[in-house]
Formats: sequence, C-alpha cells, structure tokens
Amino acid sequence: KNINKQLSKQSSYSNRGMTLEEDLNETNLYYRTHNIAVVHKKPIPVQIVNVDYPSRSAAVIKEAYFRQASTTDYNGVWNGKYIDFEAKETKSNSSFPLRNFHEHQIEHMKSVVQQEGITFVIIRFVTTDEIFLLEGKVLFFYWERMVKGGRKSIKKDEIIKDGIKIPYGLHPRIDYIKTVQKLNLL
Amino acid sequence: KNINKQLSKQSSYSNRGMTLEEDLNETNLYYRTHNIAVVHKKPIPVQIVNVDYPSRSAAVIKEAYFRQASTTDYNGVWNGKYIDFEAKETKSNSSFPLRNFHEHQIEHMKSVVQQEGITFVIIRFVTTDEIFLLEGKVLFFYWERMVKGGRKSIKKDEIIKDGIKIPYGLHPRIDYIKTVQKLNLL
Ligand SMILES: [Mg+2]
Ligand SMILES: [Mg+2]
Repeated sequence: KNINKQLSKQSSYSNRGMTLEEDLNETNLYYRTHNIAVVHKKPIPVQIVNVDYPSRSAAVIKEAYFRQASTTDYNGVWNGKYIDFEAKETKSNSSFPLRNFHEHQIEHMKSVVQQEGITFVIIRFVTTDEIFLLEGKVLFFYWERMVKGGRKSIKKDEIIKDGIKIPYGLHPRIDYIKTVQKLNLL
Repeated sequence: KNINKQLSKQSSYSNRGMTLEEDLNETNLYYRTHNIAVVHKKPIPVQIVNVDYPSRSAAVIKEAYFRQASTTDYNGVWNGKYIDFEAKETKSNSSFPLRNFHEHQIEHMKSVVQQEGITFVIIRFVTTDEIFLLEGKVLFFYWERMVKGGRKSIKKDEIIKDGIKIPYGLHPRIDYIKTVQKLNLL
C-alpha cells in the first residue's frame, strides 16, 4: 500500500478529494469547450410515479424509483468516432470486482464494438488514487473468465498489464481521449 | 387538411395512436435486436433533492425536479458513425414551431456536426400522421433565419422541400436509418 501511495504522489497532480465522476465531468466540459469531443454523462434513470403540479411553481416529483441502467454512464462523439464508456471506483487495493458490472451493460458494450464504436471502462483505485483505462475487449476477456467459473475480479496486476494508466492533469483532469488515441482501435 | 389526410392513408401502415416516442423506442429495439444500430433514448434529466431509504424496501425518491435537457433525446452508434437526434411532435398543420427547441440543444447539435457526427430532427405532424427527417444543417438554416428576425417556425412546405419523409413500417415502425443512408453525410 505504501509503495503505491508513494508512486501515485509522483504524478504531477492528484485528485484532491474529487470523485471520479466530478473529474470526468470537468474533463468532458473541457473537451466540449475546446472542441475536442462532445461527451456527456447520461442522466440517472428514474421511474417517475407521482408528480405534483402546484400552481405558480415548478412541477415536483413526489414519488420515483431508481431504475437499473441498461447502458453505460457516458457516451458521445470524438472526431467522427462513437465513444461509450463506464466509470467505476473501487476501494479494493488488489483487484477490481466484476460485480460492479451488470450483464446487460457488458452486452451493451459488446453491441457497441459490433457497430464499430469505441468502448472502455475507466477504473479508479480510490486508496492509491490511480486511474486505468481498460478496453472493451479486455473487459470482455475477464468477464468471460468469470462466466466460465474463474475469479470474480480482475487482479490489479492484470489491469496494469492489459490496461493503460491515465495520469492526472490540471485541465483536463483525466485526459482519456489522449489514452484512446494510443489504442489500436482506429 | 383533407388532402394531407388522404395522402397519409396511402402509406402502408399508420401509427395507430402510438406516440412518436413509442414508435421510436420500438424502432430502436428492432435495430438493437437485429444488430443494425445501438441507439437509446436518454433518461429524463431529474434533479434529486430528497430520497427515503425504508428498511427492507427500495429507495424512494420523495422530492425531485425536472431539469432542462442540455442535449437531444436519442444517441448511439450505427456502422461506426455517431448518431444524435431529437424527436418532436407538433399539432400544427402548416408549420413546425422552432420554440420546440432550446438554444443549447441547437448548440449541442452544431458541436456534433463539428465532431463529424450525424445529427437530425424527426418531426411528426400529429394531425396528418406524417413524419419527416430534417438534417442538422437544414435545422440550423431555419434557426438562423429566426435569430436574424425571420419567422419563428419552419413552414411545412419548406420541410417537404428540404426534409425527407419517412414512411411508417410494420417492423421497424420508423426506419430512420434507411433515411439517414440517403443523406449525403457520409
Ligand atoms: Mg459508473
Ligand atoms: Mg423530444
């Protein structure tokens, strides 16, 4: 643990208590403002049951429920390419638990690959503040290993070997497009 | 009106009381099932203020508000291309009122074009049950006309001239991908 913490301090910037989502929102705003890419976080899917319409004020949702997301968190367009990804944080130091994904999210990501879109997951190890990008095909490989009865997580060593570490920056904070450009997808 | 109604009856299928959204959801499901495209409607953006966590049952959202959408209704990927569109119904017979759009939606669609994505609006005239696809660049032209002090709507004649009529089908109900293939975008 201590070695990892020391290593992460070597990067020029740290995340200063921001969540992965906050950092990605800042990054996407930077990309949009600088005409680099148009990527948004999708709204949280909510099943609305009861709405109140008070006179002279805005409608109030009085009863609603969280629905399970059928796709991923983020999508958009970069340089003519469709981008679609999920962002996940884990408190584990040694592995990324695959129960963070639902079967239908994996199916969605496979469909994206079939349509020649670019899909990946951005994983943040909270305790060491390290961020990795794992291509869809890598994620599918470890997902299949689990489905076939293998381990229910991806070891951190495997993520280091098969993923790409994204360094923190000042603006944008998580320059994942630069990392996507390194992939042999295009 | 009567002529339009007669014309629309000539198409093989009618929409049978379905809303445009229902027809598009069915179409997108068809596309996904048949590996033609992966397009989803985005969830309604909601600002969640208060959530109740009753023991032994699902979390209940007790207070939330509708937020204005900053993007469009639908996006996804088709054949490596990014697809992004808005769907609008109008009860008017003679024109499509541009107040159906917000400035930031138009800005979003312009950004999509800049990133070489495909963007358009699908307009349904409710009374005649006719559906048209208008490319982003056509929409921007009429939007600019309004901004410069011109009329606040697009005349139906202009939509017929500059758009493409999408016939109703059985499965999929609104085959907009076939129409997109006719555009000189690619
Ligand atoms: Mg997530
Ligand atoms: Mg709409």
